[in-house]
Amino acid sequence: MSKEIKGIAASNGVAIAKAYKLVDPDLSFETVKVDDISAEKDRLQAAFLTSKADLETIKAKAAEAMGQEEAEVFTAHIMVLEDPEFTGAIEEKITTDQVNAEAALQATADGYVALFEGMAADNPYMAERAADIRDVTKRVLSHLLKRTLPNPALIDEEVVIVAHDMTPSDTAQLDRRYVKGFITDVGGRTAHAAIMARTLEIPAIVGTEKATTEIAEGDLVALDGMTGLAIDQPNQEEVAAYQAKQTAFLEKKAAWAKLRDEPSVSADGKVFTTAANIGTPKDLPGVIENGAEAIGLYRTEFLYMDSAELPTEEEQFKAYKEVLEGMQGKPVTVRTMDIGGDKDLPYLPLPHEENPFLGYRAIRISLERTDIFRTQIRALLRASVYGDLWIMFPMIATLPEFKAARDIFNDERAKMQTEGIPVADDIKLGMMIEIPAAAILADQFAKEVDFFSIGTNDLIAYTMAADRGNDKVAYLYQPYNPSILRLIKFVIDAAHKEGKVAAMCGEMAGDPIALPILMGMGLDEFSMSATSILPARALMKQLDTKQMADLAQAAVNLSTNDEVIDLVKQTLPELGD
Amino acid sequence: MSKEIKGIAASNGVAIAKAYKLVDPDLSFETVKVDDISAEKDRLQAAFLTSKADLETIKAKAAEAMGQEEAEVFTAHIMVLEDPEFTGAIEEKITTDQVNAEAALQATADGYVALFEGMAADNPYMAERAADIRDVTKRVLSHLLKRTLPNPALIDEEVVIVAHDMTPSDTAQLDRRYVKGFITDVGGRTAHAAIMARTLEIPAIVGTEKATTEIAEGDLVALDGMTGLAIDQPNQEEVAAYQAKQTAFLEKKAAWAKLRDEPSVSADGKVFTTAANIGTPKDLPGVIENGAEAIGLYRTEFLYMDSAELPTEEEQFKAYKEVLEGMQGKPVTVRTMDIGGDKDLPYLPLPHEENPFLGYRAIRISLERTDIFRTQIRALLRASVYGDLWIMFPMIATLPEFKAARDIFNDERAKMQTEGIPVADDIKLGMMIEIPAAAILADQFAKEVDFFSIGTNDLIAYTMAADRGNDKVAYLYQPYNPSILRLIKFVIDAAHKEGKVAAMCGEMAGDPIALPILMGMGLDEFSMSATSILPARALMKQLDTKQMADLAQAAVNLSTNDEVIDLVKQTLPELGD
Repeated sequence: MSKEIKGIAASNGVAIAKAYKLVDPDLSFETVKVDDISAEKDRLQAAFLTSKADLETIKAKAAEAMGQEEAEVFTAHIMVLEDPEFTGAIEEKITTDQVNAEAALQATADGYVALFEGMAADNPYMAERAADIRDVTKRVLSHLLKRTLPNPALIDEEVVIVAHDMTPSDTAQLDRRYVKGFITDVGGRTAHAAIMARTLEIPAIVGTEKATTEIAEGDLVALDGMTGLAIDQPNQEEVAAYQAKQTAFLEKKAAWAKLRDEPSVSADGKVFTTAANIGTPKDLPGVIENGAEAIGLYRTEFLYMDSAELPTEEEQFKAYKEVLEGMQGKPVTVRTMDIGGDKDLPYLPLPHEENPFLGYRAIRISLERTDIFRTQIRALLRASVYGDLWIMFPMIATLPEFKAARDIFNDERAKMQTEGIPVADDIKLGMMIEIPAAAILADQFAKEVDFFSIGTNDLIAYTMAADRGNDKVAYLYQPYNPSILRLIKFVIDAAHKEGKVAAMCGEMAGDPIALPILMGMGLDEFSMSATSILPARALMKQLDTKQMADLAQAAVNLSTNDEVIDLVKQTLPELGD
Repeated sequence: MSKEIKGIAASNGVAIAKAYKLVDPDLSFETVKVDDISAEKDRLQAAFLTSKADLETIKAKAAEAMGQEEAEVFTAHIMVLEDPEFTGAIEEKITTDQVNAEAALQATADGYVALFEGMAADNPYMAERAADIRDVTKRVLSHLLKRTLPNPALIDEEVVIVAHDMTPSDTAQLDRRYVKGFITDVGGRTAHAAIMARTLEIPAIVGTEKATTEIAEGDLVALDGMTGLAIDQPNQEEVAAYQAKQTAFLEKKAAWAKLRDEPSVSADGKVFTTAANIGTPKDLPGVIENGAEAIGLYRTEFLYMDSAELPTEEEQFKAYKEVLEGMQGKPVTVRTMDIGGDKDLPYLPLPHEENPFLGYRAIRISLERTDIFRTQIRALLRASVYGDLWIMFPMIATLPEFKAARDIFNDERAKMQTEGIPVADDIKLGMMIEIPAAAILADQFAKEVDFFSIGTNDLIAYTMAADRGNDKVAYLYQPYNPSILRLIKFVIDAAHKEGKVAAMCGEMAGDPIALPILMGMGLDEFSMSATSILPARALMKQLDTKQMADLAQAAVNLSTNDEVIDLVKQTLPELGD
């Protein structure tokens, strides 16, 4: 029987393939006395060997997908399997206690984990060792119990992944040749998994609440990432309908590809900028391929997060230079460090906070840890001669904060000029608008900055007082709520009044419901996932900015998110398909 | 040598008295072999007896201050001291191990604590037992080591308390006869300890960062709760100066007292309402004594927090009726349950949240747990015939939320009318404005509500994206930031345009810097700690609303919190003293 499953449309495209469940199996077991000690040891050896083979595959795929360094964790896992002391202790336990391999393995592993965790306070490396042993034990146990422990790297046929949620390491290992789509129980359009799906151009549905319970391993699944509708075990007609949708989508995609070298221009000839959000220089090929006219947001957190210590000025300089050169003179907006909130660094211990999103993060850290901030500013200044550099500060709430950050920038620039280091003389300084206070006071900020970039993800969270990572209040993450639209309009108007640029770098900039309104408000730059650029450019071509200005004006006078969606859909019925 | 200590002015008044340090002493000790077992047992017995005497005193004071039920925790502590099994085990350990009483006590207590905590998962009562044993052990240990374990209840002479922070149970036990003031290392003007100090009319300074390290036990301390300045070991001149300030303050207070039965009216004759915020019916005497014209905020959380299970309709009805009757026809605004955020209930387990302030709380819970909400609405409806009832919903972010809450209210009212239960026909329905989205869309909400009450504490936190309980971002808790003032002005104007009432129930309503601006904006009702009402009324009498309207207009066009403070102080130099 075919069964419809509804979720949140997270990444465009259509997939029809077998379900691969990325769900941990039940690994519970009974402790039993065994008579044949030697048979039990053989079972253990076999499970170790199969586990090792798994890990070699996973490691190779991980190295390919995420780089050698990221794959090293699996080398550590393999070393646990090869450690004679570990296997010896388990075999010893089988012999002396006359118990099954599962029980001997678990008891031995528990002993090691407790030992390492006891030392972890003095030596953080020990906590990693404990985690390694736990992971490896799970895998060996799964083979002893003959229950599949799934892993994206082990997929070697076309599938739709069905998971409770997708972790960053899960998504990093997705092989686009085999993974045709995914569907999860939790998450929203702006969750990590959804963003990754769009980057990888894998159709996806998230937040179904029940995909893992409704869909069985191996079921045929048809999935539409535009509507958020999936069908478990579709009948022939349904399969045909999804195939037709897939064909239509691929045709549309081919049409988009033709816009790669065209400008972003409305039906009535107004020119906009469509730009890309990136995390590392590795994202550049996707940016070029999708015809971005600028980088509207280069998140520098990864420089800090992918490192065992603070990144040096030289390391940062190289990354910034690579991006600036790669963009060949097109504008690159670099956001200074936004650590804290949900992003922690092992080498920069932050205080425990009840509400980290309302706490010590981003510019609040930079203005206290000016040593870290000055290093970043110097690296940016050195890189500035390789392209068109725009710098912006995250989480600015007050004007004194912006001025303090600018003072440090000016101070470092003056120092470098004295030192004779070449620095570009047209670097733009701006700020993120992501705190309501900054949006409400945008007219005052506009006098001081060169540009604004509206960070809608956080702006919506603060304005609605709802953490977007919290499922219990996910219904309040409302990008089209007229309160949000009013703030955005005020920010754009305030920028233009002072002759400054208004950009947006949140997920909203690429959203087809929001885009017509934002065009109507006169937003200058739309920065989004690279893969959203061409569809956005295609949509812009169809829209008249004067008509969209009327739409925007009507939208800010409505009273709910749903009313705005209805208005846009009525005004632009072609969006409905 | 006299030494100046600067902090945040938290509660008006001046105090000059000896320091009493509410700081845990070092209770570390060495384990030593003892020869005289019987002497060691005597030491133990003596420490038990003194501890018991302490606890009897503390219990009696706690019962007086907080009620019999709250004092029961100390009965549990005394029972631990009287438990022959516990004392027996310690004595046994002294004998068999030949160790000092400290070591025997600690080892025995650790064993019990581990045992009880092991059972706590199945039986939450056991966790309390473990906590009891830990507390009692600390007290006995302090007597064995002859180091004072301070407690507010043990104070029997005039003192200024010096503490890192004051917990709710510390402040509840403050005896105004002896405690002349307090000074803490941490906290802000809106922290619990500061609010309690104002309620109890005890002069206080908070957030000095160093009071406990700079001030020694028994030092003379002079403290000015208006300026936030304290002097450790003042010289004669300084003592005289503080005494003069104290006299001036007491004269001012006497003048305020004469305003108790006068209306709240500006110099040019405009009438306002000054109202009180309360937590329980027990607060009524203070409300009456301070001449409140209304209750602007009755926080109903205490009904839920002071209970071992959900309060019944009957229990709630009694509390609401008591408050309505006590106010003799004056308006009483009851806020429906605001649980979640930082307030948890043992019998209503809430999900763990990364950012509880941006999570599942208040109306978000009420609209899901409609069983709890309907019980509260029914209790309010039944009480409505005993006075002038206004009901408001907390944490409203969207119009559909307000409408859903109102639908439930209307539904219950219709049911009760059918049941023949008498219900007032003029109950006002309103909402808190504490989420930026609601403030920004106030014109839309104003069409639906009878009144707004601006909750500045949370509104500031969300608008500035800064948790006011987090010291690292305390500098961003800026009530006078023009962004906050703009939101408040917009809300007041929106209410008046629809002929609705605009009230405020945050700490800001009683703040002398904010009050002139709020008068100028035309805020109708100012609800505050009862003890702030008369000073506020005295200030209102001096101010001209047309002049204050100009001040307010100038303030919203400034760009920083400090600029607004300077403007108000320049416009009203009399505030400076």
